[in-house]
Amino acid sequence: MSDVKRVMGIDPGSRIAGYGIVEESGRRLAAVGHGAVRAPETSDANQKLKYIFEAFSEIIAQYNPNEMAIETVFFAQNARSALVLGQARAAAILPAMLAGIPVYEYSALQVKKALTGGGKAEKKQVADMTCRILGLKVTPKPEDVTDALALAVCHINSSPILRKLGKI
Amino acid sequence: MSDVKRVMGIDPGSRIAGYGIVEESGRRLAAVGHGAVRAPETSDANQKLKYIFEAFSEIIAQYNPNEMAIETVFFAQNARSALVLGQARAAAILPAMLAGIPVYEYSALQVKKALTGGGKAEKKQVADMTCRILGLKVTPKPEDVTDALALAVCHINSSPILRKLGKI
Repeated sequence: MSDVKRVMGIDPGSRIAGYGIVEESGRRLAAVGHGAVRAPETSDANQKLKYIFEAFSEIIAQYNPNEMAIETVFFAQNARSALVLGQARAAAILPAMLAGIPVYEYSALQVKKALTGGGKAEKKQVADMTCRILGLKVTPKPEDVTDALALAVCHINSSPILRKLGKI
Repeated sequence: MSDVKRVMGIDPGSRIAGYGIVEESGRRLAAVGHGAVRAPETSDANQKLKYIFEAFSEIIAQYNPNEMAIETVFFAQNARSALVLGQARAAAILPAMLAGIPVYEYSALQVKKALTGGGKAEKKQVADMTCRILGLKVTPKPEDVTDALALAVCHINSSPILRKLGKI
């Protein structure tokens, strides 16, 4: 394992997918890249999937992350939007899987706890803490991007425990 | 457009994905290949997606279809299973999209009408007619495979109308 580790957090939705790449160098964390993939406004859902897949393939080729972190989906939605979200999620996850990058999942509660120490934090507190840890003066927008960065930080902070448990 | 056209029908589920490749040569239809992709029994959903994606990439490389047909999902399911189904669906559709193969969607009703002429046919009637049209003596199992073949036949039978409308 190299001393520098890059973790890519992603928050894929059916219209916007946030991503953030966090580099861990010693005890320092830094955001080396972040942004949002916006699928084109088309009625062709399959074209959107292709777009998301190709965008994430490019982002992975550009940043070459070692690991990926994504939020576990557990909230109750209607079946139609869950299906569409599932498709977008697969299109965002597959480029990592094909590149041999391990993908780890965290619940929203785990992210909150990792970032603020408690499970009752507001979304804004999590975003503020994410920016503070990463030294970002401006909170990235849309919030999908900050969520993706928070997931990457959550994964890095959880890694020593996972490593101890032999899960990494 | 060549005289011989190959249409791949797919019926992707989260555990089993059926596929069937139908060749149209003049007025004759024949099943040139069919089978089921069974994702490995693993708790890692992302590994399953990778498996499905790679399996369909191989099938497409093997049979080189010109067009793909898939069933529109519209039935009410719970959100959790809809999400899982959406992920599997994307993993099966993406290899076609990446290979530049147009993907057409048909409802279960459209498939029934195309195969039996009416919308009230039982599943077995649709399967029997599919086998008759394709000259298959034995109905392929599991039913996901016959469903995939029926989709391919439905697309081929619908193509003259689509072509007239300039949609193909």
